[in-house]
Formats: sequence, C-alpha cells, structure tokens
Amino acid sequence: MPTFRAPLRDMKFVFDEVLDAYPVLQAIPAHADFTADLGEAILDEAAKLAENVLAPLNSSGDKQGCSYDAKTHSVKTPEGFAAAYDQFAGGGWTALACSTEFGGQGLPHVLNMMVEEMVCSANLSLGMYPGLTHGAINALTQHGTRELQERFLPNLISGQWTGTMCLTEPQCGTDLGLIRTRAEPQADGSYAITGTKIWITGGEHDLVDNIVHLVLAKLPEAPDSVKGISLFVVPKVLESGARNPAFCGGLEHKMGIKGSSTCVMNFEGAQGWLVGAPNEGLRCMFTMMNSARLMVGLQGLGIAEAAYQISFGFARERLQSRSLSGPRAADKPADPITVHPDVRRNLLRQKVMIEGGRALAYFTGVQVDVAHGHEDASVRQQADDLVQLLTPVVKAFLTDEGFSCANDGLQVMGGSGFTEDWGIEQLVRDVRITRIYEGTNGIQALDLVGRKLGLGGGRAVRTFFALVETWLRANPSSPHVAAVGKALQQLQRATVWVASEGMKDPEQAGAAATPYLRLFALTSLAWMWARMAAVASAQLVQGSTEKSFYSAKLKSADFFMARILLENDTLLAEVLAGKATLMAFEDDEFAA
Amino acid sequence: MPTFRAPLRDMKFVFDEVLDAYPVLQAIPAHADFTADLGEAILDEAAKLAENVLAPLNSSGDKQGCSYDAKTHSVKTPEGFAAAYDQFAGGGWTALACSTEFGGQGLPHVLNMMVEEMVCSANLSLGMYPGLTHGAINALTQHGTRELQERFLPNLISGQWTGTMCLTEPQCGTDLGLIRTRAEPQADGSYAITGTKIWITGGEHDLVDNIVHLVLAKLPEAPDSVKGISLFVVPKVLESGARNPAFCGGLEHKMGIKGSSTCVMNFEGAQGWLVGAPNEGLRCMFTMMNSARLMVGLQGLGIAEAAYQISFGFARERLQSRSLSGPRAADKPADPITVHPDVRRNLLRQKVMIEGGRALAYFTGVQVDVAHGHEDASVRQQADDLVQLLTPVVKAFLTDEGFSCANDGLQVMGGSGFTEDWGIEQLVRDVRITRIYEGTNGIQALDLVGRKLGLGGGRAVRTFFALVETWLRANPSSPHVAAVGKALQQLQRATVWVASEGMKDPEQAGAAATPYLRLFALTSLAWMWARMAAVASAQLVQGSTEKSFYSAKLKSADFFMARILLENDTLLAEVLAGKATLMAFEDDEFAA
Repeated sequence: MPTFRAPLRDMKFVFDEVLDAYPVLQAIPAHADFTADLGEAILDEAAKLAENVLAPLNSSGDKQGCSYDAKTHSVKTPEGFAAAYDQFAGGGWTALACSTEFGGQGLPHVLNMMVEEMVCSANLSLGMYPGLTHGAINALTQHGTRELQERFLPNLISGQWTGTMCLTEPQCGTDLGLIRTRAEPQADGSYAITGTKIWITGGEHDLVDNIVHLVLAKLPEAPDSVKGISLFVVPKVLESGARNPAFCGGLEHKMGIKGSSTCVMNFEGAQGWLVGAPNEGLRCMFTMMNSARLMVGLQGLGIAEAAYQISFGFARERLQSRSLSGPRAADKPADPITVHPDVRRNLLRQKVMIEGGRALAYFTGVQVDVAHGHEDASVRQQADDLVQLLTPVVKAFLTDEGFSCANDGLQVMGGSGFTEDWGIEQLVRDVRITRIYEGTNGIQALDLVGRKLGLGGGRAVRTFFALVETWLRANPSSPHVAAVGKALQQLQRATVWVASEGMKDPEQAGAAATPYLRLFALTSLAWMWARMAAVASAQLVQGSTEKSFYSAKLKSADFFMARILLENDTLLAEVLAGKATLMAFEDDEFAA
Repeated sequence: MPTFRAPLRDMKFVFDEVLDAYPVLQAIPAHADFTADLGEAILDEAAKLAENVLAPLNSSGDKQGCSYDAKTHSVKTPEGFAAAYDQFAGGGWTALACSTEFGGQGLPHVLNMMVEEMVCSANLSLGMYPGLTHGAINALTQHGTRELQERFLPNLISGQWTGTMCLTEPQCGTDLGLIRTRAEPQADGSYAITGTKIWITGGEHDLVDNIVHLVLAKLPEAPDSVKGISLFVVPKVLESGARNPAFCGGLEHKMGIKGSSTCVMNFEGAQGWLVGAPNEGLRCMFTMMNSARLMVGLQGLGIAEAAYQISFGFARERLQSRSLSGPRAADKPADPITVHPDVRRNLLRQKVMIEGGRALAYFTGVQVDVAHGHEDASVRQQADDLVQLLTPVVKAFLTDEGFSCANDGLQVMGGSGFTEDWGIEQLVRDVRITRIYEGTNGIQALDLVGRKLGLGGGRAVRTFFALVETWLRANPSSPHVAAVGKALQQLQRATVWVASEGMKDPEQAGAAATPYLRLFALTSLAWMWARMAAVASAQLVQGSTEKSFYSAKLKSADFFMARILLENDTLLAEVLAGKATLMAFEDDEFAA
C-alpha cells in the first residue's frame, strides 16, 4: 500500500514565497500574530495526522465501507474511523478556523484549506465527516440567532457533534424550487419538519453522539419556487436527550468514498428551528455552499497529489525497455519508465496541474481571509469579488483535474494501476464524486458565466484582469510574460463575447460556459506558473542551495506554457462557436 | 437497471449505406454469398442474445465477481455466466468468422467485430472469455502445425474450450524481452513449461472443461531479448485426460470487469508444444495481439454506446429547472435537462464520438476482410496497410473515448450516476482497463509513430491520405469538405514533422506520439462524418421517410465540425512543440 507524504515544501513555497501570505494575513487584525513559525508548526502537525492516522485507514475504509442497520436506523463506519475522528477532533482540527467566541481557534481560513488538502490526500471519506460540519457552522454563524448559536456552535466547533447539509430530494437536485419537505409551525416557536432528503453525507454514523442537520424545507403557503425555501436546524438528539424523529432510511451504494456514509434521511415531524428569515433559505444555503465549493476544489487537489505520489513512485521503480537515447540504467535489465517521453508527458501533466492548481487555490484562500477580516471595506470588497469569481473555477477545474490526474497516474502504472493493490484505482473512484457534489461542474460553469461575470456590473472580473495586468507590467523581464499576456487576451476576448452574447441570449452563455471556465482556469494557472517561475528564477540567481526544487519550478513553467496552455486556442474557438449546433437538435434526434 | 438496445439502425447505416460494405465483401470469393439479408439476420440474432441473455447478467456479475478456491485451484464465475456462455457457444457465435475447415462459419471478420460491439455493450466481462479465445485461434491458424490445428482448433472454434494469451510476468508487461518463463525440450518433442504469468484473462474458470493457453517462454540458451521468445500451446487438460500442471494461483482484485477472471498462472513443468519457429514468438504473439487490439477498440465503442443509452434515457426523464429560452414542458414542474445547452453539449459529444468511431472501426473491419481474402494481391496489400495503420488508432482512440463517454454520461446524471443503481459507474470502471490491456494507449501511439508511419517507407499513410483526398475531390459539393481538407492538411503537416524529426531523434516521435494519434483519429472521424453527412443529405433530398434519423446525422456532423474538430489546432501545436520541455527534467526534479 502507498505511503502518503504531505507536500509541505511545495505548500510553503506557494503560501510563503509566491503569495507572500504571512504579511498579507498579518495585516488583518484577527491574524496579526499569525507568524510563519506558527503556520508551519500547525502544518507540520496536520501532516503527521494525515500521514500517520488518516492515510492508513483509507484502503481498509474503502473495502469495508459503511453498513446500515434498519432496525436501529444506525450506521456503522469502517473500523478505526471513530478513533481517528476522535484524534482529529481532539487535536483541535475541527476548530482551527472557527470563531474564538464559541471555542474556535480563529486561525486563517486558508490554513484550514491547506489542512483540508492534506486530509483529503490521505482519506477523503473520513475527511468528509468533519468537512460537512463546517457548512453547518457557517450557516449558524451567519444566519442563526444568538440562542441557536449558543446551543449548537460550541459542540460543532469542538467536533463533539457533526453537521450535515440536507438539500437534495429524490425529485430535485440542482433545482431546489422543487423541494417538498414541509415545516409546520409549532406553538413553542419550533417547527415540525417532514420529508425525505437523499445523498446526505454523514446523515447518520457512529463517530459522535449527536448530528446537527441543516435542512431546507417549505413553510405553509410558501411560494412554489426557490423563493419559498427556508432553512432549519434539526438535531438528531434534542436537549432533553430525546431522539428527534430524523432517521436514516438507508445508505447509497456508490462508486467511491465508500467510507463516507451517504444517507437517505427521513424527517418524520422532527423538531427544528428556523435559521435566518422565512423564505430566505436559498441565501442561507449558499453560505454553506460557497465555502463548501472551495473545499471540494481542495479535495480534487488532494487526491491528485496522492495519485501523483503513487504513480511517480511506481514509475521510478518500474523497469521496462530502454531509453530511446541509449541505456540509462545499464546495470539493470531495463531502464525505469520515467525515461520514456510519453510517460514523462503523463507525469508532468499531473505535476503542473497540481502545483499550479495549488497556487490558485491558496491565492483564493488568502482572499477569503482578507474578505472576512480586513479593516478597509474596499479591500474586503475586492477580495470578496475575487473569492466569488474564483470559487466556481477552483471547484470545477481542480476536481476535473483531480480526476484527470488520478487517471493519468493509473495509466502510467498500466495493469498494476487497475488492480486494488496500489490504491490508485480507489483514488479515481473517490475523486469522481467531487465533479458532481456541491453543484456539478456544469453548474459551476453556469454560475461563473451567469452570476459571477455580472457581479457588480463586471467589477469582479475587471478586478481579476487588472491584477494580472499589473503583475505583468511590474515584471516585464520575468519568464513567460508574453505567454501569460496572450492567454489573458484570449480570456478577455472570450469574456467580452460571453458577456455581450449572453446578455442577448442566455443560451449562448450556457453553450460557452464549460469551455469558458476551463479557459479561465488555464489562464489563471499560466499566471500562477509565471509567478512561480519568477520566484524560482530569483532564488537560483541568489544561489539557493535547493537547486533541484527551484529548477523544477522553472522547467515545470516551461512545460506548462509549451504544452498545456496550447489548449486555450481550442477553448476560445469553442466559446466563439456559439450555441447553434447544440440547440439545433430535436428531442427525437438525440435518440436517432 | 438499464435496458440495452443494440443500435442496429446505426450499424446498418454505417455498414451498408456509408461504407457500402456488402458489394465490397461480395467481391471476396469467400464472401460471395454474404448478402444484406444474411448479414442483417445475423445481427438481429446477435442483438437478441446481447439484450436478453448477456445484458441481464452484467450488474449481478459485477457485484458477485469471480471467486478462487486455493485448494482446487479453481475459479467460480458469477451466477448465470456458464449458462449464458453455453447459449453463446451453442448459437455458433464463437465460430462466426472462423475457418470452415475446422468447423467455423467463415463469415466476415467485420461482422464478428459488429457482434463484439454489441456483446461488450451488454456485458464486457462475459464477452472476454470467448473474446480471448480468438487470439489463440488466430495464433494456431497462422503458425501452428497441421497436427496442432487438428488437435485444438475444432474445440476452440466451437467454443467447447476457451483460450488465453499468457504474455505478462511480474517483472515485464510492455517489455517482453524480460520474460523468464522457461521451456525445456522433452524427448517426445514437447516442452516442459515453467514460470509464472500474471493478468491472464480467463486463465481459469468454470465455463468449459478445457482451457488452451498460448504461452510465451524462452528456450534454453535463447537470446536475452525479444528475439529469444518462443510461443507454446499448453492445454489445461491433456489428451490423455490428465491434468497438466498449469494452475491458477490466484485472482487479481480489480477496479472493474469483476466478472472476468484475471489470473496468476503457475506453469509447473506443464507440457506444451511449440507454435511457429523457435525464437519467433514475438511475431506469433503479434498475430494474436493485432486482432485483439482492434477488438479492444470495439469494447470501448460498445461501452460508450451503453453509457450513452443510459445517460440520455435518464436526461430525457429528469426534470430540473426551466429552459433558458422559456418553459418547454409547461405542464410539468420543470423541463427535462436535455433543454440545457451544457447537458446537450455533453450528450452530443458522446453521440458524435460513438457514431464517428463506429464508422472508423467498421471501415477498418472491412479492410481486414479485404486483406484476408481478396484475389488481387495489390488490393490485399493496400487493405492490410490500412489495417496496420488504423489498428492502434482504433484501439487507443475508441477506448479513450469509451472512458470519456462513460464519464460524460455519468456526469449528465449527477449524483445518480455515482450510485450503483443506474449501472453507469460500472461502465466507467469496466471500460477503464481497455485503455491499458493489449498494449497501453501510450504504446499504441508509439506503435503508430514508430512502426506504422514507416510501413513500406510511408506507403500505408500515403494510401490513407490518398483515400481521403480522392473522396474529397469526388464530393466537392458535399457538406464539410473544406473542414476535412483543413484537418487533413494539419495531419499531413504533423506527419511530415514526426517522420522527419523522429528519423533524426526517436524521442521526438515519442514526445509527439499521443497528440499525433489523437490528431489522426479526429481527422479520420471528420472524414467519416463528412461521408455520413453526404449519405444523409442525399437521403433527405430523395425524400426518405426516416427524416429524424438522417437530419440527426447532418446535425451531428455540423456539431462535430463546429465544436469537436477544433481540438486539432491544439493537437498539432503540441506535436510541433517537440520534446525539449519533457526531456529537460532530471529524475530528482520530478519529485521536487
């Protein structure tokens, strides 16, 4: 079985050297004391937890899965998960970025994202139990009354309880206007919640004693659309100690994340309390959803990193055939397959997507903290614009690439990769869901073109373009400035097209959405790679002793520009191709 | 569970209307009587078998898998497989394209490929048992002595026995020069075979009484390279009725094709007989391998077809949100998701890859028969050149797309696709291996640039280009002639680059191989789509009553040219990018 090693050196490179994140965070009052020493000490500890506690349970958790007992409506998680969760919660990891008011540590959100990356590299299934809790914490923090906060937040933040997000019903996934779960007002001010929710991650399990469900439901006579949805908090166990009738009715059998319980939840007049204003549930739900979307992007990144480690580890040891330019390991019966150009292409594609994706994700993560806590409202606004704009990009691109990288890794390993022995086929199966949940990647693309481009009349996207242009002007002699400039022009041309054509006809924006998001992502990565190359180049000039590390960054940037960024041409052309050939089909012609 | 319907109408369209295959085959003496009536009757029967016998066992076969009994070295296949196999063999399907001399039906190979496509749509795992037998039949037919043929072929052809291909060993997959299995000459002219083979499909199972292994091994003092490999036939049960010591030592646990037994095979001095000349095993092996590679391409196609049927069937029923151009199903709570541009993009991408891939595969299949049986040696040679050239393209592209289509289908279905309920996640897992076995797709790409482009000094590729050019000149007013012409020029430019740079430095060809193969495939599909559009256009002009069928072809061709063929620009650019950025990395820089 593979051994995961947290990529601490690369995390530090991105966070500290490229993004210069410590001073940026220290400028936020709440993080004035967040030093590099502290940050690195925390990451070191998280790495140990991920490597030594979570990773060893990943394969066994997949094989055992979760099991359901219909008599007691209970769910058993795989062996070792409960003890590992206790270590996770006991170590304070659930509380890391939570408000100090309710027992959290108040550390930066971006630090939590970095921890999440390592956790998901090690064990996505296990990481989802505390992961989903954050949605509940966010919703209660931002929309709950003081009373509800006091009742639920301390135990959620400490990890003594976990949380869920109960949105989907059999007849509605993407279209929440179709929700049927009802909330009947009760005399005591609470509500009786009745309905069935599906695909509820961590809806029932044996890690903790209480589970706090955040549930979308309809008040009597609410409008028949998304404007008629309200949010409720529904604990599994009431304060009285009584069992609330919110029962798990069964588990989904899934392609992957088998250690994570995915539940059907039956609310049978369960007692709940309104969170936020009546009929404002959609807005509250997006509070849960947006930070969850960023976290799902990190899941994709984490799995890609784990897959790269396995496939490169295999490739450097696997001896097959000779290098085309003459034997490299003449003392052995064949050369390691890393000598073959096509294998290198495969490995390097993973490497630059992972490291470039990490830079983009952490860049966005730093903006999350600035948006939350900077003293200057205009700085907060600009950071929030960037977070809004980049969240669908990070979610969709990093999960698409998480899947591609895991598959590329499997391919490098040939038949070995297809067997269960190496753990990479599990990564392919596990990461597959990240392209779907918290809004499919198609929905992310529609969010980008339909909502985010128009944010503040285009303010968010102009802010992003200005940042890139400013950097390019400030670094005229840096490597790859011309390539990034060209990519940016392509993205700008696509943006103008989507904005103007989409205004006239939203189906044009819909037809362009997926290639547009990818064009946005690759252009962003090109900028990140140029920034990384600039830092590496300076380090080498200054005679850094980490020569391989920095020269690898320069070569990776070269590879990205020479062989990956080429895709932009095709993506721009597809955006400009318009909707005509998509919409021409009649229903019966699809089947013909 | 999904219901598979064989795409008989589209198969007939490609085979009969586009390729005009019946007269082409009738010009071959052995197939003079192969009429459309006969061909279609056979395909109808195969469709019934696939739909009613094989498909119902696909999901249960995946869930049960194969089990191994170490005491008896025996393997139990999933429930129902043995009875279904009996129907398959009893119906004469194993014998379809085999030589009449030993009990085969002598029908065209392309017909067998079409049957294989349906079988693999229905149940890839079950289809693999008879599928692999063909490799053994081909090797014995072409290289075995008359005595060996008489001893083994009748029972292999009738399906009473099955066959295997035993190539891989723990230390060698791609690089067969590293084989260690030994063959010791015995006094009676046979050989004692000793060694361990892995990943042997159908190495042991309970479908038939005898299994005939074709085994690569080394004679004493054979050269220490691929020039020192010989091929042997090693039956599980000897003529005397004695058990030959060729034992299954265990099963692989795999991501997919769980109903197909993948065995470790231990040969413990098993009795075998030489097939072909000593040290000519590699050449004999390629006889098995080449037709197997085409068949693997058909597997990818078959799975893609099944996935499209499931995902389109889901999408037309799944109601979520409203069309961006106004409600389509106003009487329902929402519109079917097929109204959304991004869902259409996803479905249509599958559709054009499948139907275009089918045309390319059948085109190649017809050439197989011409190459085998035409009276004119120069016609045979040209057809064989095309088969050689297109085999790696069909294998790699159709399996890459089989995987992409299955994933696109899963994505259309959102969370439902990720559950086991719809059967599409199984298709994703099953088809994943097709990109690996019978030579990974990277190896196919190297075969194309390294062997096939150079065939006869470039004769094969010139033949292919001339065919396309002739068609373009003959159909100047046909739809998409300009687009195909442009694509062909891109392919020709890439070909000249690969040939000339690869001559100077084989690593340049290696670096270009994968994008070059895909450029070749998309260009070939563009040609196929132009041909299909030409036929459809003529039918509509002539007032065909199948208006939806033919108009769908025209619209699919439009979609392919407008949105899929765009990728050629990026692929050509990647070919021309050269090896520099790939080869620049030092070993320690991959890990840095």
